[in-house]
Amino acid sequence: MKAAQVVDQEVQTGKVSIESTTRRSVSRGLSILDFILRVLAALGTLASAIAMGTTKQTLPFVTRFVRFKAVYKDLPTFTFFVIANSIAFGYLLLSLTISFLHIVKYKAINSRIVLIVFDLVIMGVLMGGASAATAIVSLAHDGNTIANWFPICRQFNSFCQRVSGSLIGSYLAIVLFIILIILSSLVISRR
Amino acid sequence: MKAAQVVDQEVQTGKVSIESTTRRSVSRGLSILDFILRVLAALGTLASAIAMGTTKQTLPFVTRFVRFKAVYKDLPTFTFFVIANSIAFGYLLLSLTISFLHIVKYKAINSRIVLIVFDLVIMGVLMGGASAATAIVSLAHDGNTIANWFPICRQFNSFCQRVSGSLIGSYLAIVLFIILIILSSLVISRR
Repeated sequence: MKAAQVVDQEVQTGKVSIESTTRRSVSRGLSILDFILRVLAALGTLASAIAMGTTKQTLPFVTRFVRFKAVYKDLPTFTFFVIANSIAFGYLLLSLTISFLHIVKYKAINSRIVLIVFDLVIMGVLMGGASAATAIVSLAHDGNTIANWFPICRQFNSFCQRVSGSLIGSYLAIVLFIILIILSSLVISRR
Repeated sequence: MKAAQVVDQEVQTGKVSIESTTRRSVSRGLSILDFILRVLAALGTLASAIAMGTTKQTLPFVTRFVRFKAVYKDLPTFTFFVIANSIAFGYLLLSLTISFLHIVKYKAINSRIVLIVFDLVIMGVLMGGASAATAIVSLAHDGNTIANWFPICRQFNSFCQRVSGSLIGSYLAIVLFIILIILSSLVISRR
């Protein structure tokens, strides 16, 4: 009822109508930006999952301390990293459909709040995977003399480099998620 | 101008005025809930920082593999955990003042969006610290045979238990942050 009255007045006064059109096109612009950022974040998580998932290194020699071959499944944290990135990728693909609907129906509020909730949870999962993997990668690089954990990167050098690189896509996606949530709040507040 | 017209009509029609009062009191209720959740989250991060920061264990014997004493500073990840929780605690204390202002000025929108931005970043820092610490704690419990990392919890049993326990406060605060950000979006959308 209130909304109808406002629309009524917007039609009566030309100035308000122009203001409303600007407001609409900015909201639509933000919705398109939301869609693009989701595509980029999806690519980031996919790249991370593939880079980590396909990493392996076979050593030409055997010592008392190291195995022939290192793959991501040897460390449970890296397995979690791959799973977290795959979940985030799947979610981002699904959310693209809702994001596309928002470009058309830019006034939708409830679906945006639902997206914020899921974005937050998936961002948490992604952050958990990325930072846990970072802790293990840093341990693999430096080791820890007090706990007597050896730096395995001395043997598995290319494995370590590839694993470290695979973190980038995940952190990029986390930053994009933060921007996405802020964008959604801005659109909701502009309604 | 638009807002003024709406208020005008609210005064004219009694029904809308009652609806507006309900809307106002719900917004105020959500603001009070925001304040309480921030206090709880602050207590969680403080407990985590203190529990981790004061943990130490001195062993009655020395072996080739373990030291006399284990403190959190021996593992850089645990140091980061303490710093992350301290930062979150400091931020939550500061945000309490803004949260208190929101109870009085429940119509404020811009300051709520600023809070969402900072909440998101601090939640990310907290999640990073907690999950990195979890990865190391899990390694300390189980070790890793392939990387030849020994489970140090066999020696430092009480140290490990205390460290594991200190994670709880941090994860509680993360869940509260997620609820806080959702609450803020709800209040913004109800405006």
